[in-house]
Amino acid sequence: MSQPPLTLLRQELRRRRLQGFLVPRADEHQGEYVPPSAERLAWLTGFTGSAGFAIVLEDQAVLFVDGRYTLQAAAEVDRSLFQFRHLHDDPPNRWLAKTLPAGTRVGYDPWLHTPDVVELMVQACRAAKAKLVPVRSNPLDAVWRDRPAPPTAPLVLHPLEFAGRDAAEKRAEIAEMLTRDKVDTAVLTKPESIAWLLNIRGGDVPFAPMPLAFALIHADQTVDLFVDPKKLSAPVVDHLGPAVRLAPPDMFGAALDGLAERTVRIDTATAPAWAQDRLVAARVTLDKGIDPCEVPKACKNAVELAGSRRAHQRDGIALARFFAWLDGAIDAGDVTEITAAETLAEFRRAGAHFRSQSFPTISGAGPNGAIVHYRSTAATNRKLAAGQLYLVDSGAQYLDATTDVTRTIAVGAVGAEERRRFTLVLKGHIALATARFPEGTTGSQLDALARRALWNEGLDYDHGTGHGVGSYLGVHEGPQRIGKQSSGQPLLPGMVISDEPGYYKAGAYGIRIENLVAVKRWEAVSERPMLEFEVLTLAPIDLALVDTALLDAQEIAWLNAYHARVREALTPDLDAATAAWLERATREI
Amino acid sequence: MSQPPLTLLRQELRRRRLQGFLVPRADEHQGEYVPPSAERLAWLTGFTGSAGFAIVLEDQAVLFVDGRYTLQAAAEVDRSLFQFRHLHDDPPNRWLAKTLPAGTRVGYDPWLHTPDVVELMVQACRAAKAKLVPVRSNPLDAVWRDRPAPPTAPLVLHPLEFAGRDAAEKRAEIAEMLTRDKVDTAVLTKPESIAWLLNIRGGDVPFAPMPLAFALIHADQTVDLFVDPKKLSAPVVDHLGPAVRLAPPDMFGAALDGLAERTVRIDTATAPAWAQDRLVAARVTLDKGIDPCEVPKACKNAVELAGSRRAHQRDGIALARFFAWLDGAIDAGDVTEITAAETLAEFRRAGAHFRSQSFPTISGAGPNGAIVHYRSTAATNRKLAAGQLYLVDSGAQYLDATTDVTRTIAVGAVGAEERRRFTLVLKGHIALATARFPEGTTGSQLDALARRALWNEGLDYDHGTGHGVGSYLGVHEGPQRIGKQSSGQPLLPGMVISDEPGYYKAGAYGIRIENLVAVKRWEAVSERPMLEFEVLTLAPIDLALVDTALLDAQEIAWLNAYHARVREALTPDLDAATAAWLERATREI
Repeated sequence: MSQPPLTLLRQELRRRRLQGFLVPRADEHQGEYVPPSAERLAWLTGFTGSAGFAIVLEDQAVLFVDGRYTLQAAAEVDRSLFQFRHLHDDPPNRWLAKTLPAGTRVGYDPWLHTPDVVELMVQACRAAKAKLVPVRSNPLDAVWRDRPAPPTAPLVLHPLEFAGRDAAEKRAEIAEMLTRDKVDTAVLTKPESIAWLLNIRGGDVPFAPMPLAFALIHADQTVDLFVDPKKLSAPVVDHLGPAVRLAPPDMFGAALDGLAERTVRIDTATAPAWAQDRLVAARVTLDKGIDPCEVPKACKNAVELAGSRRAHQRDGIALARFFAWLDGAIDAGDVTEITAAETLAEFRRAGAHFRSQSFPTISGAGPNGAIVHYRSTAATNRKLAAGQLYLVDSGAQYLDATTDVTRTIAVGAVGAEERRRFTLVLKGHIALATARFPEGTTGSQLDALARRALWNEGLDYDHGTGHGVGSYLGVHEGPQRIGKQSSGQPLLPGMVISDEPGYYKAGAYGIRIENLVAVKRWEAVSERPMLEFEVLTLAPIDLALVDTALLDAQEIAWLNAYHARVREALTPDLDAATAAWLERATREI
Repeated sequence: MSQPPLTLLRQELRRRRLQGFLVPRADEHQGEYVPPSAERLAWLTGFTGSAGFAIVLEDQAVLFVDGRYTLQAAAEVDRSLFQFRHLHDDPPNRWLAKTLPAGTRVGYDPWLHTPDVVELMVQACRAAKAKLVPVRSNPLDAVWRDRPAPPTAPLVLHPLEFAGRDAAEKRAEIAEMLTRDKVDTAVLTKPESIAWLLNIRGGDVPFAPMPLAFALIHADQTVDLFVDPKKLSAPVVDHLGPAVRLAPPDMFGAALDGLAERTVRIDTATAPAWAQDRLVAARVTLDKGIDPCEVPKACKNAVELAGSRRAHQRDGIALARFFAWLDGAIDAGDVTEITAAETLAEFRRAGAHFRSQSFPTISGAGPNGAIVHYRSTAATNRKLAAGQLYLVDSGAQYLDATTDVTRTIAVGAVGAEERRRFTLVLKGHIALATARFPEGTTGSQLDALARRALWNEGLDYDHGTGHGVGSYLGVHEGPQRIGKQSSGQPLLPGMVISDEPGYYKAGAYGIRIENLVAVKRWEAVSERPMLEFEVLTLAPIDLALVDTALLDAQEIAWLNAYHARVREALTPDLDAATAAWLERATREI
């Protein structure tokens, strides 16, 4: 019998004279999804969640996960090998500071941590009089025998009919930003930034068309793209053109060395520490700041917004077909979380430009709906039983947009408490959807609007209210967000963001109502320039859960107008039975 | 004829081989009000506003003021001597970075700037390849011939019936906080912290009973108080007791030297840089963090809250008498901004425990109401004329509380626009007053509630929505605040804060509705522990300005309940005519 990965890693650490090692969930690109070759945390611990961190010492090992993954970690991880800690309440750096014996040498792979995180860990180790040591090669990789090969999905063009702006124009815009900031070169390590900038897409990770690569963009508008040649094809090379110099990823370091004497922008919150260390060694003048593609990418252009409207039309058709089907199938009696999610995926696949789901569908019946990041498995799968709520959070990658929508529906008759709380969530959803706000307003300033009705009854929810969404890219993209934590990023015209307040009663039910909205200018002549939202998502909100007595006239008007818009947009594309169902589902109240 | 101060200062700078000097409005304690001996900016420039900053170079001099003081600076300052710049849009550090010739030596008095500000200025000078130099003695003081003597107002006891907690108990609490944070000593340089900690008050600056002094509090619960012996009396020395060692202010430096090897807390946002420099020279381990008295002082105890309720009762009587008088006097025809403010002050003086106003009354008729920090002068004084709004923002220092209230009233019949916008401001005021929110919520999270109704019509206001208020101390005290800028400080039970949305139409009118509120726990049993506000201020809101059609049922209910409370609380203490007026002013709508 083979030895457990933890034992193998410890043997390797001993060989390297390290008494500890840090294992994050991240890969070199710090994305939400990583390829199988980067699933080091899962290989080491068994834990397959999308956020986590392990620290391996000689005599103990700890896995840090957040609240949404406590149950999953307990099911997947051997408690005799790993202790569990809360990723945010008792974070790795604090644990290191209070646990490490003085003199300990703890290793980390500088490719897998950002400079900001390394700085925290360095301070923690210093507090414990221990030492944090970058490794030249990852000791875990050295003992991971059956490690999958890195992905080599081909790059594909993202044509102008979807991207809306020529790559040369984008390069010119970023170069102008760099010139204005007196920066010669910016390091790009986020695949979504590179994909946006060059109008390319890839397929290296699940759920998002990310091309794993590195790049440098210079103030002269040229780009150095470091990408595995196996991913390249003649049409792509042709599309990239002479302003984009191609090199394999192992040339990235030498290129950084070549930036000596220049001023180089690096995003210390997202770049690998390895890149910063190399720049420092090359005597580069660092300009620490945000990845210059982030804000321009977040502000969708008119073609991208038009694409999003069309994609949401197709998404709405799939959702209407799904909910109409569900209405009948539930009565028939044997719909489960898994069959429901599969059916919804099938309807979506029928839409033009569909490429994949944009994240694993959250399909939670009854108490499973209260698990915010629930993923149904054979062990947890429940029937959609009468008297319960069913929550479904899903989305798709279309060539013309990324979608993300959550609806909560009543299976049969549900209790007054469920209806009241659904209506409070709806009030928050509408308050945010109808907000008008001055230019310069951040998402954190708006967050309370979505929570006020719940707060008023002593209730709340423990997640953000809105996240940015890419355009046929990541379903979670910054820099904009709406949440309790303050964010310095103003909401700007063209930004797409979710509006998703919720309420969760552990062991009982979960409620969430999520639409995507786009920031736009308020057209009226007003004393100050104001912004507002355009709702993109087209799907009915379950009227069986709406307690009309709790809504004021404006809220009722919004719901009726939204439902009329959904009905009018979708009906022409629906079969008669689905259209009849939608007619009832969007009736005026 | 004597030479202008600017010339004198430049001569002194030349003698000292400095090519520039920074002159802030602040004194050593960074308070809102400074004694005449510290009015250096006014002496140098003529500008008497409460915020400003001057930079004097050999061939140019600049005065930085913010938007509220642009007009006042233009009236007070000789434009042939000083250029004007915006304090926030074009701040001193940015101006230095782009203006200073390389090699320039710019002086600053380290007693008058915080370490945080010095750090900004150092960076700015470095960017210009200039040098920022601390001076050993202030060159401006050296040439300020008729400089007033520093104040020596006697310290007085702040008795337990108002303070609510024994000074020994407060010392023990702060000492425990320091012990928990592994800090040996904290440097206290804010008079309000020292006053709160030791249950003393002073009289060294206008509008606030501040005792200008420095102190050290140690983890052993003892205090070193550095105060001019002229301010001391036998009862105060007796009250302070043996745990408070007394020394003159010029012993402060030696005491800091004596902290070598210790860990010392210093608040780099409020302490003089001089103190930090001295600690660094003494090889002290610095613990940069908030003044430990700030949060405990902000959370008023039950006795302070009871005192505040009583003081607001007396304040409410004065306000009712004033508004009733105004109602008649306006009809008679010759009330001006100044006579109105004087009459209000007279009514306040009649109240028990009255000590002074808490800030210069803002009494603005018509267009003057649109100047947010307006101060009526003989030159600007206006009659309260029919058809206009009148805004009055005022407050008092009572032994049992500090008050601050703003009301806007209609003089005769006013236009529909004024009524509509007043009602929008009122909706925001009510939304904040009735907010319920989870523990941990900050003021910046609630700010949008107060602005939403205005935002919805394309309107906004350019000031914060709420500031903390002391207990017979400063009328503006942190760390809590409600505003667009994010604040990391959660609202905690006992904190007193203002609720003061407004609207200003330049050249036309100003609207502000301000009550003080206290944070308290929501008493109901609820899923999460929630907080809400208790309204402290008792004064009618002018119903002539309320457009009832814009209010929803809950808003009308709040206004009627508030008015009933005002009426019931004040009527027993009013003369018949005022009571009759109040009856009408607080009628149900």
